[in-house]
Amino acid sequence: MTKENGRFVTFEGCDGCGKSTQLKLLSEYLQQEQIEHIFTREPGGGKISEAIREILLSGKNAEMGDECEALLYAASRAQHIKDRVQPALREGKLVVCDRYVDSSFAYQAFARGLGFSFIEKINAFALEKFLPDVTIFFDLSPREAFARKKGADADDRLEQAGLAFHERVYEGYLSLCEKYPERIVKIDARRSIEEIAKEVLSVLKARGCF
Amino acid sequence: MTKENGRFVTFEGCDGCGKSTQLKLLSEYLQQEQIEHIFTREPGGGKISEAIREILLSGKNAEMGDECEALLYAASRAQHIKDRVQPALREGKLVVCDRYVDSSFAYQAFARGLGFSFIEKINAFALEKFLPDVTIFFDLSPREAFARKKGADADDRLEQAGLAFHERVYEGYLSLCEKYPERIVKIDARRSIEEIAKEVLSVLKARGCF
Repeated sequence: MTKENGRFVTFEGCDGCGKSTQLKLLSEYLQQEQIEHIFTREPGGGKISEAIREILLSGKNAEMGDECEALLYAASRAQHIKDRVQPALREGKLVVCDRYVDSSFAYQAFARGLGFSFIEKINAFALEKFLPDVTIFFDLSPREAFARKKGADADDRLEQAGLAFHERVYEGYLSLCEKYPERIVKIDARRSIEEIAKEVLSVLKARGCF
Repeated sequence: MTKENGRFVTFEGCDGCGKSTQLKLLSEYLQQEQIEHIFTREPGGGKISEAIREILLSGKNAEMGDECEALLYAASRAQHIKDRVQPALREGKLVVCDRYVDSSFAYQAFARGLGFSFIEKINAFALEKFLPDVTIFFDLSPREAFARKKGADADDRLEQAGLAFHERVYEGYLSLCEKYPERIVKIDARRSIEEIAKEVLSVLKARGCF
């Protein structure tokens, strides 16, 4: 729970879970209802954070160590909070962020194997002062996401290697849902786009976001 | 104490303490004696670390928050360890590094006021696995360093503001000397260059660095 006026909502899930589509639909709803809000994303969201994002996502930096990667995500997050999240919350706006600290837990702590405690430590600033009011986890297993997206391709060897990593990310998310049952709301993302969008709105209304 | 074969030495001190001069003299000695070693520096020391250094030291990034700054230093350090420090130590070389984790304690924890515990947490990788065998602290107060460097200029208002910050850095270093009496060796840096160089060699020899 943040100590500011606005509400802070984050969207989480594995690649291909339908998060982007739902962000778009939520955006349309918020504009239509004239609810003051900002959409933002991680990593990035400001000049310094975007510069860090560039180092993180550059194909030239394949030799980056897991610790460095996790620390860069945390650095980008701290600056993103300062530049975008905190000012908007202070103005009483609803802040919707595509990925946040739970992505670091799922990807770096669980899938990369850095451990929960290390990620918790380096994200102390976000966790202690800017914990989301609600986090929506779009629950779709990577196997289902891959199948949906690529059909038969999901069987080739490279995909399998990728799949193993994403299965660990998914297991990480499920652990987080158990660890933070009050904050994280799990939404069944196997249903239709309309059904999911309806549940997103209903969860956010029930939590007093608008 | 690292778990590798080589010895790991770091040099620390306030700006103007004479560290660079001593690094140069040590380098000459090590070359002359044909002692296998590398010199390196923080922040930087490799492609990714230098890219992070650029973000840290760019004049355009004045809006950088203290947390982001501290995390970027830690990220750069983790990658620097992986790219340069660990490989050299594995080969049994002496590694001499200009600034390391104690700079983060002195500058970010003490002078910026982020607190010891936060800096300790985000540098867990360096502290748990790559703690220097010996750290030499060149003990010269900023007041003396300023006076030596700028003479009467030290009195103007801007310098005074800078001085207050550097005094906090100095106090931080003195606390670290008390906290880690076995690792950090304090050398009186008010003496002549030759006297200081002699003591550096004598400390490193006594600690089995060569």
